[in-house]
Amino acid sequence: MATDKIRIFDTTLRDGEQAPGCSMTLREKLRVARALSELNVDIIEAGFPAASPGDFEAVKAIADENLGPTICGLARCHPEDIEKVHAAVKGADKHRIHVFVATSAIHREYKLKMAKEEIIKSAVGAVQHARELCDDVEFSPEDASRTELAYLAEVVTAAIEAGATTVNIPDTVGYTVPKEFDRLFRYLKEHVPGIDDITLSVHCHDDLGMAVANSLAAVAAGARQIECTINGIGERAGNCSLEEVVMALKTRSEFFDLDTEIDTTRLYPTARLVSGITGMAIPRNKAIVGENAFAHEAGIHQHGMLQHHSTYEIMRPDDVGISKSNLVLGKHSGRHAFRDRVRELGFKLDEFETNRAFQEFKKLADRKKDIYDGDIEAIIMNVDSSSSGPWLLKSLNVTSGTDEEATASLTLIDESGKEKNESANGDGPVEAAFRVLEDTTGIDLDLKKFELHSASVGEDAQGEATVTVEYDGYSYRGHGTSTDIVEAACRAYLEVINRILRRRELGKQDGPVAADINRASI
Amino acid sequence: MATDKIRIFDTTLRDGEQAPGCSMTLREKLRVARALSELNVDIIEAGFPAASPGDFEAVKAIADENLGPTICGLARCHPEDIEKVHAAVKGADKHRIHVFVATSAIHREYKLKMAKEEIIKSAVGAVQHARELCDDVEFSPEDASRTELAYLAEVVTAAIEAGATTVNIPDTVGYTVPKEFDRLFRYLKEHVPGIDDITLSVHCHDDLGMAVANSLAAVAAGARQIECTINGIGERAGNCSLEEVVMALKTRSEFFDLDTEIDTTRLYPTARLVSGITGMAIPRNKAIVGENAFAHEAGIHQHGMLQHHSTYEIMRPDDVGISKSNLVLGKHSGRHAFRDRVRELGFKLDEFETNRAFQEFKKLADRKKDIYDGDIEAIIMNVDSSSSGPWLLKSLNVTSGTDEEATASLTLIDESGKEKNESANGDGPVEAAFRVLEDTTGIDLDLKKFELHSASVGEDAQGEATVTVEYDGYSYRGHGTSTDIVEAACRAYLEVINRILRRRELGKQDGPVAADINRASI
Repeated sequence: MATDKIRIFDTTLRDGEQAPGCSMTLREKLRVARALSELNVDIIEAGFPAASPGDFEAVKAIADENLGPTICGLARCHPEDIEKVHAAVKGADKHRIHVFVATSAIHREYKLKMAKEEIIKSAVGAVQHARELCDDVEFSPEDASRTELAYLAEVVTAAIEAGATTVNIPDTVGYTVPKEFDRLFRYLKEHVPGIDDITLSVHCHDDLGMAVANSLAAVAAGARQIECTINGIGERAGNCSLEEVVMALKTRSEFFDLDTEIDTTRLYPTARLVSGITGMAIPRNKAIVGENAFAHEAGIHQHGMLQHHSTYEIMRPDDVGISKSNLVLGKHSGRHAFRDRVRELGFKLDEFETNRAFQEFKKLADRKKDIYDGDIEAIIMNVDSSSSGPWLLKSLNVTSGTDEEATASLTLIDESGKEKNESANGDGPVEAAFRVLEDTTGIDLDLKKFELHSASVGEDAQGEATVTVEYDGYSYRGHGTSTDIVEAACRAYLEVINRILRRRELGKQDGPVAADINRASI
Repeated sequence: MATDKIRIFDTTLRDGEQAPGCSMTLREKLRVARALSELNVDIIEAGFPAASPGDFEAVKAIADENLGPTICGLARCHPEDIEKVHAAVKGADKHRIHVFVATSAIHREYKLKMAKEEIIKSAVGAVQHARELCDDVEFSPEDASRTELAYLAEVVTAAIEAGATTVNIPDTVGYTVPKEFDRLFRYLKEHVPGIDDITLSVHCHDDLGMAVANSLAAVAAGARQIECTINGIGERAGNCSLEEVVMALKTRSEFFDLDTEIDTTRLYPTARLVSGITGMAIPRNKAIVGENAFAHEAGIHQHGMLQHHSTYEIMRPDDVGISKSNLVLGKHSGRHAFRDRVRELGFKLDEFETNRAFQEFKKLADRKKDIYDGDIEAIIMNVDSSSSGPWLLKSLNVTSGTDEEATASLTLIDESGKEKNESANGDGPVEAAFRVLEDTTGIDLDLKKFELHSASVGEDAQGEATVTVEYDGYSYRGHGTSTDIVEAACRAYLEVINRILRRRELGKQDGPVAADINRASI
């Protein structure tokens, strides 16, 4: 199927979400899926339905929205896994079942304890089963880059004969280099019958910093699908970064002569969204979407060095959706301007959410002169995360200082409207606030990490707090925002407590569960 | 000079330090230079002496320590630049002058407004001048990757004839891809007389995410020096990351058959040091040194998936200096254990600094049960940054809450021992604290960014605050640490105020100055 179009297969919600600290709730996954659809990716790998009931529900919810891109789910070569994927994805007009099995000697020996022939049999059975349920079936030989070439060709041949319509070659451990990967793809092109009739795909990890270059080596050698994630999130050093590989193809189009259908002006808003949801800050020096990526453009004095933008710039900020204006809103900005800005920032809110966010915006505008994009993003993340109880923060007061122990007093309201007022001491105001939250709600968390960033500029900027905690063997992350950093921290902590309490009632759907997901590495 | 050894040329202190927000003080640069020497890099590019008196002083101070690696300084093809480099670096037994001039059409036309012949004349004159002063001279044709191949060969030939001992090929704008760069290097190898008698070097930027792969393509095609930075810091998307390129060569040694002399067990401590000093956090999913890079090792439940480490791990944490123990110290740990740990973390402190840090450690151990590596790093960064007045924080008290405006009261002591006590209000405790600091000291800063991280785990962890501010057209960054986050913020803000006041007295040596450095991009 030689074509000049490269399909972009986004696995932010599967391989990305598996990374420690990147797990997302159902609502967050839906929001990311909508943004990926706006970005116009070809395929969304929405999860690994057999991993947990929560994963199944999330894949199903995304498929049922029928956003446009093909919705894909991952399955081991087990009948139950495959059936679960099918049940989860079938709500989307275009859907795909993706089955994988490891093929390298080290995985055969230490992980699967299976012989070469058994693995082929397993792969063929799984692909055939999947094809009975679905016309669009992808097969991945895990750890392909460390698999013997001849055996890899044998496995791929069998998978194609069994009906796979896409074959994906993962560099599971981020081990290969471009020249070597080029040879692997050319070898397959030469030795696998029928390989020109299916879509050949590439899936790279960044352990040696070469995921983008390896993916591009693969497409230069005939691959026509790239698997990647927003901001390159993923296990260990992460996956190939979508924004980098897409902009490399676009910027060097005269070299590659290959196109994607990505709307590159959605890259920056999508990157910000995923960063906000996962709490994985975008490094300042991240290519394409980092704060410094276009620093020559950002008002830094150039002392006449820069007479022509392309002297030091091979892309324009506009190309990737970085608006030069950073339009500032203020207390006189109306609902219309606010709603437009929200949309430009890549958020899709329903009427109810827009109203809530606009109210928060007006409240903030009373306290803060200029409202920047970062402030608006913070409002929206906050509206989303703090929307459900059972506990609401009514008031919080702290005193602290070098001369005394810190004290935090707070009033929480539960669902029945009953108020509870308590106070506690601590070494600093945040410790005191966390203690009083634990005392009041009876949920004792184990704080692993606390981070806080200003959402915009100025001493009156809002602080966005992120806490990472463990409770009962599970890992949780909470966000909170306020112009008062102690309050922001408190809201983040309370968000987690509320989530744990809701989860107790509702089962496991809503809790991000990093530790017990039966993870799949390809 | 074909050899199997790759020289590692570290430009963290020149190209890295030029990145927005990465400027360092003289003390910080010295500390990084010492760490680079422990890491055993071959060449340290210590700065661009003609850029400012502060840059000159820093390069000279580093050269005068005679740490072992070759000390290099950058110069335009101007006699004064070259003489300044020589004056700055000559204190080191091994020293190098690095001259550059742009050669691409776009730079010739828009930046230099010089014809091809003029550029060659300028390069030849500069190399000859440098060779009169120094035996070790490097030449870089800026934007080489966008220069016409034949003209590039002509320039390089002329530079070698003029006496250049190293010729460096920069991909200044991060534009090239491995296959193209391979062709460029092979072309030069074929068309430049004498190229086998000099060291061919490569210098890559990461704008399209391919700096590491491009550098490796160059060495596979004959380059024997790689220019890179710790954590890949540098302008825009940054430079080739030292730790990634070194570990790629080591991990895939059977593919490349090339060695470096880097002590890879110093990679992680050095990365942490540079991150701490520049305030550029290491992304969790950063290859080699990110928190998740070895996540399979980090105690995450594997549900039996991991019978053998190499199933998912191509490097060992030990190889890059990540200690598995994360040795915990406590209140009963003595000076000896503390000093050992400080050394293992990559810090070199003198007797006075060790004593101060140990006192802080004991104070912290009284308040906090377990002292982790992060806490120790925070103490050391703090001891370093808060060591000079004129203002010292004596006490700070804040009250804040949802029901009232925040108030901060503080007492500062000036150098004469006079106390000043003031208070101010704000929307949150940090705003109130910043206001009262400004009122008390008379220095009005423009806050651009505020960040805070927990230094270790637990609700009693210390918070490390980083503020980025502008004052009088200059950009400054301050750090502060405390178990009380408001106090940490306050210390960070006060550090900047003190630096500005000291700078007013002492001239410009001590102030990081991002905006007015006459920057050199290669």
